[in-house]
Amino acid sequence: MKRKGIIIVVSGFSGVGKGTIMKSLTSRYDQYALSISATTRDPRPGEENGREYFFVSNEEFEKLIKEDGLIEYAGYVGHYYGTPRKFVEDKLNDGIDVILEIELQGALQIKKQYKDAMLLFVMPPSAEELEKRLTGRGTEDLDVIRKRLARANEEAVGIENYDYIVINDDLDECVEQVHSIIGAAHMSSDRNQEFIDTIRKELNDLVK
Amino acid sequence: MKRKGIIIVVSGFSGVGKGTIMKSLTSRYDQYALSISATTRDPRPGEENGREYFFVSNEEFEKLIKEDGLIEYAGYVGHYYGTPRKFVEDKLNDGIDVILEIELQGALQIKKQYKDAMLLFVMPPSAEELEKRLTGRGTEDLDVIRKRLARANEEAVGIENYDYIVINDDLDECVEQVHSIIGAAHMSSDRNQEFIDTIRKELNDLVK
Repeated sequence: MKRKGIIIVVSGFSGVGKGTIMKSLTSRYDQYALSISATTRDPRPGEENGREYFFVSNEEFEKLIKEDGLIEYAGYVGHYYGTPRKFVEDKLNDGIDVILEIELQGALQIKKQYKDAMLLFVMPPSAEELEKRLTGRGTEDLDVIRKRLARANEEAVGIENYDYIVINDDLDECVEQVHSIIGAAHMSSDRNQEFIDTIRKELNDLVK
Repeated sequence: MKRKGIIIVVSGFSGVGKGTIMKSLTSRYDQYALSISATTRDPRPGEENGREYFFVSNEEFEKLIKEDGLIEYAGYVGHYYGTPRKFVEDKLNDGIDVILEIELQGALQIKKQYKDAMLLFVMPPSAEELEKRLTGRGTEDLDVIRKRLARANEEAVGIENYDYIVINDDLDECVEQVHSIIGAAHMSSDRNQEFIDTIRKELNDLVK
């Protein structure tokens, strides 16, 4: 039986560590590919085109939208972010699980097109811990931190749209939990209809 | 956060090895308890009252039904089988996951009462392998085997009612898969509403 790839949408408050979790997960296990988003925002220091993001112009982004070349896109703080379709579908066809690190708006667009996509929300152990992590980064000024907490507060409204939550307390444990949730998803009955039908046919032939 | 127990309903064709899987699972991990059914059928050689089943009379069984002392019951080949309520609810309250080895009819009764029950169906790698295992037992005559295969053929119709399927090819692997599916279930967002609400309240207080 050929294993079919699953789309895994991962969201979580800014600063919760979802990027680190996903990088660790994909480096530990071969079965995952991390989708790279296209964006119109400028690269931050250290970011590389094609690694963190595909950095494109507004014009290029709007062309992608028009050509149905994105499976989801959204605007955030004046910039476009979107997921190129080709990469995702190629990987799924190869049986690779594709991880998309996107926000609620995009997650819901994905769920509409890919019924069996799995939506995962990464939670901090507490709101206080989230604030601590945002502060500890040291790269952002207080105003930005306040904005991110306010944003987190808004995003928290949508958590029930996600299938699973994981708590990022210990990184290793969290990575293994995500791996285990995805492994379980592969065993859901609706993702194994083909196998069920095969056994059913075989049984039917046996008792004839 | 107090972990709440989950009801796990396990079904599967006769001979597929679900009893062995569940015994192995509960002996490996403390977090599970195996519910013991009440039945009106006679004990088979080697079976003990209170270990494999609670063996009761028809009268006693019908009294249990009347007193709402069973969370599900069904008739099978002229006998009653049912799950005593008290044991299950006591364990759930203690945060223990309760495993019920019952059939589709009972599984659906459970799902109606306990919305977050998880339904699991154990599959053989192939129908041929199932036949081989039934024959290999050596305890049953050919007529019984034929009946069980016919019964399996009937049961196969209901598999889509189950949330997950596991394939019992390698016992150890299968036990770990079941453990992993249950672990994932504990991380579903609808089973963590309390934690989500807590974080939400904390965030809201932070940005006030």
